[in-house]
Amino acid sequence: MNVYITGAATTKFGELWATSPRQLAGEAVGGALKDAGIGIRRIQALFVGNMLSGILGGQEHLGAFFAEELGITAPAFKIEGACASGGLALHNAVNSVLSGQYDTVVVLGVEKMTDHKPEDVATALMGAGSEEERSAGATFPGLYAILACAYMREYGTTREQLAAVAVKNHYHASLNPNAQFHTTITIEQVVRSSRIADPLRLLDCSPISDGASAVVVSNKKSAHGILVAASTVATDSLGLAGRASLTQLAATKEAGKRAYARAGITPKDIDVAEVHDCFTIAEILAMEDLGFFAKGKAAAAIAAGETRLGKSRHLVVNPSGGLKGCGHPVGATGVKQIVELVDQLRGRAGARQVQGATIGLAHNVGGSGATAVVHILKK
Amino acid sequence: MNVYITGAATTKFGELWATSPRQLAGEAVGGALKDAGIGIRRIQALFVGNMLSGILGGQEHLGAFFAEELGITAPAFKIEGACASGGLALHNAVNSVLSGQYDTVVVLGVEKMTDHKPEDVATALMGAGSEEERSAGATFPGLYAILACAYMREYGTTREQLAAVAVKNHYHASLNPNAQFHTTITIEQVVRSSRIADPLRLLDCSPISDGASAVVVSNKKSAHGILVAASTVATDSLGLAGRASLTQLAATKEAGKRAYARAGITPKDIDVAEVHDCFTIAEILAMEDLGFFAKGKAAAAIAAGETRLGKSRHLVVNPSGGLKGCGHPVGATGVKQIVELVDQLRGRAGARQVQGATIGLAHNVGGSGATAVVHILKK
Repeated sequence: MNVYITGAATTKFGELWATSPRQLAGEAVGGALKDAGIGIRRIQALFVGNMLSGILGGQEHLGAFFAEELGITAPAFKIEGACASGGLALHNAVNSVLSGQYDTVVVLGVEKMTDHKPEDVATALMGAGSEEERSAGATFPGLYAILACAYMREYGTTREQLAAVAVKNHYHASLNPNAQFHTTITIEQVVRSSRIADPLRLLDCSPISDGASAVVVSNKKSAHGILVAASTVATDSLGLAGRASLTQLAATKEAGKRAYARAGITPKDIDVAEVHDCFTIAEILAMEDLGFFAKGKAAAAIAAGETRLGKSRHLVVNPSGGLKGCGHPVGATGVKQIVELVDQLRGRAGARQVQGATIGLAHNVGGSGATAVVHILKK
Repeated sequence: MNVYITGAATTKFGELWATSPRQLAGEAVGGALKDAGIGIRRIQALFVGNMLSGILGGQEHLGAFFAEELGITAPAFKIEGACASGGLALHNAVNSVLSGQYDTVVVLGVEKMTDHKPEDVATALMGAGSEEERSAGATFPGLYAILACAYMREYGTTREQLAAVAVKNHYHASLNPNAQFHTTITIEQVVRSSRIADPLRLLDCSPISDGASAVVVSNKKSAHGILVAASTVATDSLGLAGRASLTQLAATKEAGKRAYARAGITPKDIDVAEVHDCFTIAEILAMEDLGFFAKGKAAAAIAAGETRLGKSRHLVVNPSGGLKGCGHPVGATGVKQIVELVDQLRGRAGARQVQGATIGLAHNVGGSGATAVVHILKK
């Protein structure tokens, strides 16, 4: 059996003060259903990806919560795996359709972060880390700074090369009407922005965002259905202290390897990728762990524009703007990546269209790399 | 393809002050693997059912959290749907095996509630309810008291008949070495216990508990494998105000109906059932909604001993002691119900064995009925 993404939509990402989670969900799911050309009654199950609603707002039971908002009594689930919640929700949705139990389901990724104090959000996000990291007072910028330090020491990567990731992704975001940021930035602006956790500066970090994204997953190929050629997940130790290496994410490598095998392709076949750039160093690691560049070579390649829209000859990375430029409502991110790939593969990505794209890859990470999800989509 | 429960185990339920969530998980999963006769390396995915770890303890990302504790790098997910989290985790695990993506997976239900102040737990549990109910200051005893009032008014049920549910389930729990309570109680003790939310008294309510339960789910039938004949889920409005009726749970009726159809049986074929008796009224509603008794008839039937071990001639309900007597660590409950049915169908339930049981039903509810999960198991 094959499984297809038959509809996809996202809300704008950003500081959406006037919009409730219910409204965000309604807009995203409504858009995905309209795109698929079906009514809500055709939906046999709802998979919600969300991380923070319980910790920050006291609201759990989000499957039933959003099912009620959508006016359905179909089975509904919340799937959580920190910032990989959206990707994990899609993985379980794909398997549930493959199982034959459901024909057509919706995956909704949603997060509302700006209603809370930033320090509360930073603390809540540490729910993705290990108990030891939490008790030590670590933050996610701090954890990724450790990865950046280790990587820069090992491979001689420069501060400016890190910055180039943010510059590229802000450029892409400037072409995306749904992105949180529409301003391009320079290397100099990144390296002079406020220090957050050395060597990471403010403009190395993805923002706090609101947003929702949704896709319709079905065993029925519609006119514009995009094939899910692979959906894989791998896990690593929750905390950095348990890792064999700090210059790669083992879970990404494993999930990527399995995904390529499942889809019967190699990294060279990918035309467009949405990868998890929660911090600039994360995109560099992802490029290598997913096999796009040899170890230690990604930072220079990105800085040379090799994955930039209009400059790349074979692979464009994060045309949506990525987490850095498009925004990072954590539970929504993994689903938004799929929406972007669908738009790219259907040739409707407007000013940020990757010409002739036929195969796309999405890479969604939970925590500092404990969970990695890879999806490969084919036109 | 068929799916089987090939291993099952539970920790003792209770106030386990000296035991951490990691230890609980290790004991339950270790026991289930030993029961299945396989090593942890055979596990291809981990499904964790948990509700409160984020709200109460700030820890999310429990898939990776417990995968690390178990020493595996397999895909790992947290599935949440309030007190139905365990049942929903099993549902997704069953579908993932049916999909052909995984051959053998583990479902772990786990909750640690007693480390927190009871008033914090009561507030956290309201994360299962609607925003309106939360803002109004409702509690779950209060919500189920509304259901009890509506039911008693409609059907003339007496206070003593409600109490009979608790008396039966404490008797069953007294025969279960893993139960939180081992003392039998009387009707008089129930009706004279502290008033919690009129008409519900302390002994009408399931307790705050710690515990973990685990099952191995596989497409390979082992010598003692128990068939999963049906796994169904249905959803209703989150809050009571949105319901068409207060004397039944529509989600239970729908999930039950689909489960009987899937398994090709009727309620009369069930020998043993574990149902969601978070409050005494809930078991009465479940008996009718699942088709065991006609509307308005369950309370008298239970009080007459028709579902009591040693007295029933056709159906024993909650031989484990149910949520009331065995305890209710919310994320674990839906999985513990399966462990109990496996023990019953394999004839190893000791003093609480239902003689000759071959078909069992598990019924797990989230919130005040917004989510209902039904599993039917066959020897």
